[in-house]
Amino acid sequence: MQARTLYRDGRSLVVLDQTGLPHVVRNCRLDTLEDAAEAIRGMQVRGAPLIGATAAGGVALALQLDASDAGLAGAIGVLGATRPTAVNLHWALGRMQARLAPLPAGAREAAAWAEFEAICREDIATNGAIGRHGLPLLETVCAARRDRPVRVMTHCNAGWLATLGHGTALAPVYAAQAAGIPVEVWVSETRPRNQGLLTAWELREAGIPNRLIADNAAGILMARGEVDLVITGADRVAANGDTANKVGTYLKALAARDAGIPFYIAAPGSTIDFGCPAGTSIPIEDRDGDEFRVVHGLEDGARAQVHIAPADAAVANPAFDVTPARLITAIVTERGCAAPDRLADLFPEHTP
Amino acid sequence: MQARTLYRDGRSLVVLDQTGLPHVVRNCRLDTLEDAAEAIRGMQVRGAPLIGATAAGGVALALQLDASDAGLAGAIGVLGATRPTAVNLHWALGRMQARLAPLPAGAREAAAWAEFEAICREDIATNGAIGRHGLPLLETVCAARRDRPVRVMTHCNAGWLATLGHGTALAPVYAAQAAGIPVEVWVSETRPRNQGLLTAWELREAGIPNRLIADNAAGILMARGEVDLVITGADRVAANGDTANKVGTYLKALAARDAGIPFYIAAPGSTIDFGCPAGTSIPIEDRDGDEFRVVHGLEDGARAQVHIAPADAAVANPAFDVTPARLITAIVTERGCAAPDRLADLFPEHTP
Repeated sequence: MQARTLYRDGRSLVVLDQTGLPHVVRNCRLDTLEDAAEAIRGMQVRGAPLIGATAAGGVALALQLDASDAGLAGAIGVLGATRPTAVNLHWALGRMQARLAPLPAGAREAAAWAEFEAICREDIATNGAIGRHGLPLLETVCAARRDRPVRVMTHCNAGWLATLGHGTALAPVYAAQAAGIPVEVWVSETRPRNQGLLTAWELREAGIPNRLIADNAAGILMARGEVDLVITGADRVAANGDTANKVGTYLKALAARDAGIPFYIAAPGSTIDFGCPAGTSIPIEDRDGDEFRVVHGLEDGARAQVHIAPADAAVANPAFDVTPARLITAIVTERGCAAPDRLADLFPEHTP
Repeated sequence: MQARTLYRDGRSLVVLDQTGLPHVVRNCRLDTLEDAAEAIRGMQVRGAPLIGATAAGGVALALQLDASDAGLAGAIGVLGATRPTAVNLHWALGRMQARLAPLPAGAREAAAWAEFEAICREDIATNGAIGRHGLPLLETVCAARRDRPVRVMTHCNAGWLATLGHGTALAPVYAAQAAGIPVEVWVSETRPRNQGLLTAWELREAGIPNRLIADNAAGILMARGEVDLVITGADRVAANGDTANKVGTYLKALAARDAGIPFYIAAPGSTIDFGCPAGTSIPIEDRDGDEFRVVHGLEDGARAQVHIAPADAAVANPAFDVTPARLITAIVTERGCAAPDRLADLFPEHTP
């Protein structure tokens, strides 16, 4: 039974605190704008679609205290500055701004909650559509290789923990399971934050066989023929199909190309930034070096200060990388699959 | 001041126990064949050249108790089975066999220690020569970019901790430092065993600026132009130049190729297996999944059972991968640099 990553409870938001997973499943209540901003910054919620929805809810929390023009602008400013790379954050805030700014202050709070609920509902529907459109990619492998399960590799977590529904990258995997297609998943550890453990956990809860690997092992597994296809989520897709996703995605795309394995991105339209011409324009978040020193997901649920790296070691920690469109076989969206240079065919309303 | 990784002390070997580094610097005494085998298996000593020398010393330890033909054969059998990928192990054992088997049993112990000492001395000289032959690779960058230090990326640890001398991959870095060339090193964490922390530690002890990165970050740093060259060690180089090294090396080679950055292997002739035609013939060690669960190098020096991954998570843990010769710019040996398909020019005695 899937837990809920985010929902409204009266005048609060409730989120599943992902910093304790996979060992401790606990919820966390967000009562204020600052609570919501800190939950995004501190990665209690993570995953581009879930970040966007949490930001929308954060606007509603803020408007409960101050629904003036200044209150709305302030909330959008605070939430927009939490994390730079995932464009869903800005997409959701832009949508809240467009919906709420024209309203009188007294009507904004209720409208904000309604818009938040709409974003959540739409994300669930979007996840379902991504699953349906991605399913044929696994069916094709299954038809060709009836002797064994379809072997999918993913990176980071783009499952139900990253969304309101069944996920993006994992939606086709769940759809395959529902369709009776045997599937196994290679789960990359995803240092330094170890989000692969979230993926291993949610797949295991769903009864889908999976194996955890070091990020370093992706290349040899593909070269050995142990992977049929790679599918990851995205934090921002540029108009030309270049895709920012969790750091390490680019290395998997290179290995997939070298091994002749298809490499797919699964993402909703809200992750495509048609205003961003190419990957070089996507801002890449540099996170704190402490992520190398703090082990998340300990059995006691604490974020223990385990000094894997000496406290004074110099660290560089870019949180994302950009996979060039030339390495991406197709992008799976709620409107279907497209080659990365044909996204405008699926979303013609964004064509200049 | 550099500690010693391995030396003889009377009837024992003394090794620097690398499982406690970088937080605890402690030596460990090996008195028996089984001590030596366990030190290699458990990675108290690691790095292809150091594994080879330790195995040679292990033969001497064994012969102290039983210098018969059976004793010699047994020692070589036990040590040869400790780790499959690093060919220096077999090279050193083959050398001990060739030197000792023809001798009467009574002469073997002294000869074994003498051969061990010779292997150690030669490794130091080999490291020095690799440094001299690799230095021009950094000098070329320095001459072209006088505005900033030369930026080298490495993987795992192929420094003095992996050898008897100054290392293989890091020998040219130390040579550059000695020549007054400013150099900075990107140090890849090297999951799951975190040997990058050993590299960060030894570079810091030597006063060479370095920054630790997640293995996942190698691609974006190269794509951003923040790396001038990549240089790693090797565990086995096939006759055609395909190179087995710590898992993740192949991903760095792919990223270097994509970014137009030179990718070098630094290894002694003893790491080249002219009897192995290509990388597909190199045995790849699969290590225990517990390496994901045990954090090495904690501040208290313990190998703490920190459950990063749940104890029952399924794990796959190939310890090495193979970088195809086509991705390697050159291999730096004690006899000079060669393109990977021209190794026989440097070692003509191995030409069939």
